[in-house]
Amino acid sequence: MNCELLNKNYALLPESYLFSEIARKIAAFQEKHPEREIIRLGIGDVTRPLVPAVIEAMHRAVGEMADPATFRGYGPEPGYPFLREAVAAAEYGSRNIDIGPDEIFVSDGSKCDVANIQELFSADCSVAIPDPVYPVYLDSNVMAGRGGRLMPDGRYGKIHYMACGENNGFQPNLPPRGTALIYLCSPNNPTGTVLSRATLEKLVAFALDTGAVILFDAAYADYIRDDRLVHTIYEIPGAKKCAVEFHSFSKSAGFTGVRCAFTVIPREMETLRRMWLRRQSTKFNGVNYIVQRAAEAVYTPAGREQTRDVISGYMRNAGVIREGLRKAGYTVFGGEHAPYIWWRLPDGVKSQAFFDFLLEKCAVVGTPGSGFGPEGEGFFRLTAFGDPAKTREAVSRIAEMPAFPA
Amino acid sequence: MNCELLNKNYALLPESYLFSEIARKIAAFQEKHPEREIIRLGIGDVTRPLVPAVIEAMHRAVGEMADPATFRGYGPEPGYPFLREAVAAAEYGSRNIDIGPDEIFVSDGSKCDVANIQELFSADCSVAIPDPVYPVYLDSNVMAGRGGRLMPDGRYGKIHYMACGENNGFQPNLPPRGTALIYLCSPNNPTGTVLSRATLEKLVAFALDTGAVILFDAAYADYIRDDRLVHTIYEIPGAKKCAVEFHSFSKSAGFTGVRCAFTVIPREMETLRRMWLRRQSTKFNGVNYIVQRAAEAVYTPAGREQTRDVISGYMRNAGVIREGLRKAGYTVFGGEHAPYIWWRLPDGVKSQAFFDFLLEKCAVVGTPGSGFGPEGEGFFRLTAFGDPAKTREAVSRIAEMPAFPA
Repeated sequence: MNCELLNKNYALLPESYLFSEIARKIAAFQEKHPEREIIRLGIGDVTRPLVPAVIEAMHRAVGEMADPATFRGYGPEPGYPFLREAVAAAEYGSRNIDIGPDEIFVSDGSKCDVANIQELFSADCSVAIPDPVYPVYLDSNVMAGRGGRLMPDGRYGKIHYMACGENNGFQPNLPPRGTALIYLCSPNNPTGTVLSRATLEKLVAFALDTGAVILFDAAYADYIRDDRLVHTIYEIPGAKKCAVEFHSFSKSAGFTGVRCAFTVIPREMETLRRMWLRRQSTKFNGVNYIVQRAAEAVYTPAGREQTRDVISGYMRNAGVIREGLRKAGYTVFGGEHAPYIWWRLPDGVKSQAFFDFLLEKCAVVGTPGSGFGPEGEGFFRLTAFGDPAKTREAVSRIAEMPAFPA
Repeated sequence: MNCELLNKNYALLPESYLFSEIARKIAAFQEKHPEREIIRLGIGDVTRPLVPAVIEAMHRAVGEMADPATFRGYGPEPGYPFLREAVAAAEYGSRNIDIGPDEIFVSDGSKCDVANIQELFSADCSVAIPDPVYPVYLDSNVMAGRGGRLMPDGRYGKIHYMACGENNGFQPNLPPRGTALIYLCSPNNPTGTVLSRATLEKLVAFALDTGAVILFDAAYADYIRDDRLVHTIYEIPGAKKCAVEFHSFSKSAGFTGVRCAFTVIPREMETLRRMWLRRQSTKFNGVNYIVQRAAEAVYTPAGREQTRDVISGYMRNAGVIREGLRKAGYTVFGGEHAPYIWWRLPDGVKSQAFFDFLLEKCAVVGTPGSGFGPEGEGFFRLTAFGDPAKTREAVSRIAEMPAFPA
């Protein structure tokens, strides 16, 4: 084949997607040291089984698929009404926010949706992303040619990086005027910090003023422990005119291996809503029926109570890591309203080198902060999704870890 | 929001995706005539339940998801090894074609894959598509800006339409030199015809000669009743150097509501294979574990026998429609190695008008040929996926249908 035909933007991406590269390193370590028990606090993957309410709904739906009278073929591309209605009521109606079922688009994952949404915008529009943040926002825009030149410091020339760190309390400043797309993630992956109401009000006002669109990733909203914090961007007046919101069942109900999510595009952004409907009808064929019944079950009283218990368990792990590391003398952020702990490494320690060090010395896996953007350098992410006993064991190992090599 | 930021290519697409528009018309008709029983031979959706081997595998996998010891979170983005190995052995090894598991990418649907594959190519590369054909190849390229101007006759200026009709036995001529992407669909949706070995040899030789890439959609391969016909493009020598193949469990195992498919990119196209792996790792999070176990079960001896029986049942419907319409004096194509019957309408009858006429007179739903491309005008697609009794009833109604209005 003629390689001149290929999308050259792919060549601008680092060789490996962060998490695939980590998986490779872990496999190599385990092969070399088969006797050591690795504790994985790296990838943000859940470990607790699906809750009983979900399992029951799945068995029931599998049964329906076996019977000609109840079998389901293609469903509506944006999702079955039963699920869209349940989402509208539970996620928004319950907060007195008027979002209707036709503004909700069910999909097989927020990763897909946050990666695909950029297709609705022109190839040359300008993009602002938090730094550090989940890498998919950046990578999907680089693939589409919005990155510009890859610079020696790892930044892309046309991307505006909104630094979120200690010195601004993890609250980004406004991007430059003329920015078209503003990605936000709150609670943030990887820092575990939450955007304040004041920050969101400023960003919404900016978007309304400039015509920018906010792409708000709320995948971890159910980990927020304080009702006064913002759970959905639509709590901010005016957001329906400028913001798309992404939610997932992956972390809220342990669906990482099940695959279900939803995206909200309000009627106030009707052109965009219709474009997304067109995109999904053309390039997507809806979510598995059994999965949609499973997601519906998350919103039953039993499903809500059971998933809340699972989240509480993960958040206890978060507390164990946060407090354990603090007691050992480290500085950490996050872990209060998110399943991520953001660990500041001693001055001058590089996060990739620290990944190798921690794996070698403690057989504990985390994620190097630099994988989430330039501002992530010098930080390390640990996740609260592990087994409680293993999480405690990891913290003990870390507390006894030798000093970093200079 | 500022609408100047939007991808303007979307505005080049007709307002509604073909099948969504049909669904709307049917709903309106049923509301107006609640007493009439509509027989749907329109959308290519299966109606028979999942086979017992698949149902058993699903219940078993749901059980695993309930137990911490066997629960699965994120799987490998390109699919679990157990499924990739089963596909390699059953689809290729059994035909003495050497395709390995690492050349197979599991996804949630061929629609997604055939729509997404174009992202790997440059935005200005030239595209050839069969005419008529499944609309997703065209629409996904128009969305990406490869369509060019929408002309008064409904064609896009930069797309090369490979006419496949009666006068060439539904075998396309070669596209112009310089064509980068050649989409093929065999058995063809909507015509139900199969590309001959000679046609495929010519096209592969052309691609090898010019550096073009063939995108071969084999979603209906399991409906081919004659072992001498080509089931996979890799039966053609040299195809591994120039062709990507798409397969789906939707029609072979009734998975339209379950969502599983796979795409093959051979090692001989290593750059493209790695780009797709990167694309899927970045923008996709793998297929539901339960679904992958279900797909694996399709390849067990019981699964194969049971799905073969279901396909035979659909193909008996195809025979009923094909022979029934012929007996009623109509000219039809397809329906021998595909679940689609391609009905030539009397001279001058437009297919959209005929859709309305058939719905009104017979309460039978089909699909207007014009929805599949300009060459589809004057034709009508019926599908063999209906209930056997209802299919016979539809054929009876058609046989007694009044003459078309002039």
